[in-house]
Amino acid sequence: MKKMAVIGCGLIGGSMALAWKEAGIVDEVIACGPHESTLKIAKEKGVADNTTTSVTEAVQDADIVVVAVPVLAMEEVFTEISKALKPGAIVTDVGSTRKTVIAAARKGLKEKFSQYAPGHPIAGGELPGVAHADGDLFKEKVVISTPDDGMKPEVVEFIEEAWKKAGAKIKVMTPQVHDEIFASVSHLPHVLAYALVDMIAKESSAQEKLTMAGAGFRDFTRIAASSPVMWRDICLTNREAISKELRRYRHELEELQAAIDNSDGEKLEACFENAMKNRRGLVFPANTPKQEKTNG
Amino acid sequence: MKKMAVIGCGLIGGSMALAWKEAGIVDEVIACGPHESTLKIAKEKGVADNTTTSVTEAVQDADIVVVAVPVLAMEEVFTEISKALKPGAIVTDVGSTRKTVIAAARKGLKEKFSQYAPGHPIAGGELPGVAHADGDLFKEKVVISTPDDGMKPEVVEFIEEAWKKAGAKIKVMTPQVHDEIFASVSHLPHVLAYALVDMIAKESSAQEKLTMAGAGFRDFTRIAASSPVMWRDICLTNREAISKELRRYRHELEELQAAIDNSDGEKLEACFENAMKNRRGLVFPANTPKQEKTNG
Repeated sequence: MKKMAVIGCGLIGGSMALAWKEAGIVDEVIACGPHESTLKIAKEKGVADNTTTSVTEAVQDADIVVVAVPVLAMEEVFTEISKALKPGAIVTDVGSTRKTVIAAARKGLKEKFSQYAPGHPIAGGELPGVAHADGDLFKEKVVISTPDDGMKPEVVEFIEEAWKKAGAKIKVMTPQVHDEIFASVSHLPHVLAYALVDMIAKESSAQEKLTMAGAGFRDFTRIAASSPVMWRDICLTNREAISKELRRYRHELEELQAAIDNSDGEKLEACFENAMKNRRGLVFPANTPKQEKTNG
Repeated sequence: MKKMAVIGCGLIGGSMALAWKEAGIVDEVIACGPHESTLKIAKEKGVADNTTTSVTEAVQDADIVVVAVPVLAMEEVFTEISKALKPGAIVTDVGSTRKTVIAAARKGLKEKFSQYAPGHPIAGGELPGVAHADGDLFKEKVVISTPDDGMKPEVVEFIEEAWKKAGAKIKVMTPQVHDEIFASVSHLPHVLAYALVDMIAKESSAQEKLTMAGAGFRDFTRIAASSPVMWRDICLTNREAISKELRRYRHELEELQAAIDNSDGEKLEACFENAMKNRRGLVFPANTPKQEKTNG
């Protein structure tokens, strides 16, 4: 009888509870969060067998503890976990930044850091919250494993194998490389999408503009519906890499602004052509490109 | 027996041929373009009954002429059309910018400008080209009608009614308002998506980064797979409005850069929160929001 405690029961924590239970990795789930209303949904939806607002209570009998709270809240959660964690129990997390989260685990778990292994599932949904939890969310998706000093190979391997049983594929890289890659292909795009919707929403003609938006805008801004606190924390904990990428992007936009202002069609076409070729060449795992209607 | 000539037989021109024929607005379609290979696909796919590389040949027997070429190529096409257009035949276009295209129609069609009415269908597809033409592309989508001086109300009405029969909904606005709105919600997002993919693709670690990209990146950059020439022309013909929006967006990014560099979580959260609320509140016509898997 394996017990799992999920600390922070949102879309990812909730989906993980469903997926790991379905895969037979755990038999019973206790969900922990500050809001009774969320815990009620978790229980009603069958995500959790039991619920609690106390981290200690959630952790004390658990064989596996998953930390799925916004990344800046993790150090405090790890500290609470370390006080109640059973010997031999395993702790993991699902945070989108690796260097800061691993440092938080090291600091919070202290001597129990050897019971920890990291994981970042590259999956999510437009609508957050445990109400949208889905046991198939990680099927064919990539989970990044970033082993680091002081972690036990057998604990890392346990977490990697568990994710595989839940349908995911494992990619291994250093925390540093992880944070650089995702600053480019995930964190920066989120900042850019939030910035565009925020900019338009602040205008007096916002509603007129937004009701005219088509499928292209919908796709471009889908990630701007993500949790603000989660993404604030990602920006703050992967600050250096995101700052660098944003600076480079602003330089790219400065050049495009000049090309537009100077009616430099050649320069615009060269940029668009290079982007188009690279974008069309992309094959996304488990997301076979098909004709999807977009905005003209 | 109504005949339609489609000048420029790509995704939009081809889909319009299928949709307008299905709706019974026209009985026969002749497709016109510079490439025999494209025209062959148009015929094989049933988009066109006949094909030609000559605008004059396409236009001379046509009752309806649709111009669906990149917007900077339109003036020349309108000039050619005016030489062969039957009295009483109607000309329309599908361009994404209105002020420049209407000016091009006025200049190219000359005294036959009274036979012209404009239309901009807010629809498209990730994959361009007549091979992906789809008679249902405009169903429940919006088509913008921008009547202007010198246009005949009955010609404008004919085009609006035809689009409605093809399943679309009509919104009427001035060319100026159209160009401002779409600079914000369509043209700027395309520039931003192209800029991001171009920036990443130029790096030495491009392939490593791009293969790690998840569904969020896929959605955010979908519009960067669009036709470079089409979008170059849109940037050049709606230059002022796009330039203004891009400048405002760069200012927004400058502020976010400062917030990230100063670890100003409050400012980041306020921006993300405002964007999230407005994005979640959006209902897209014929695109009922549902849980769509995205990048975490």
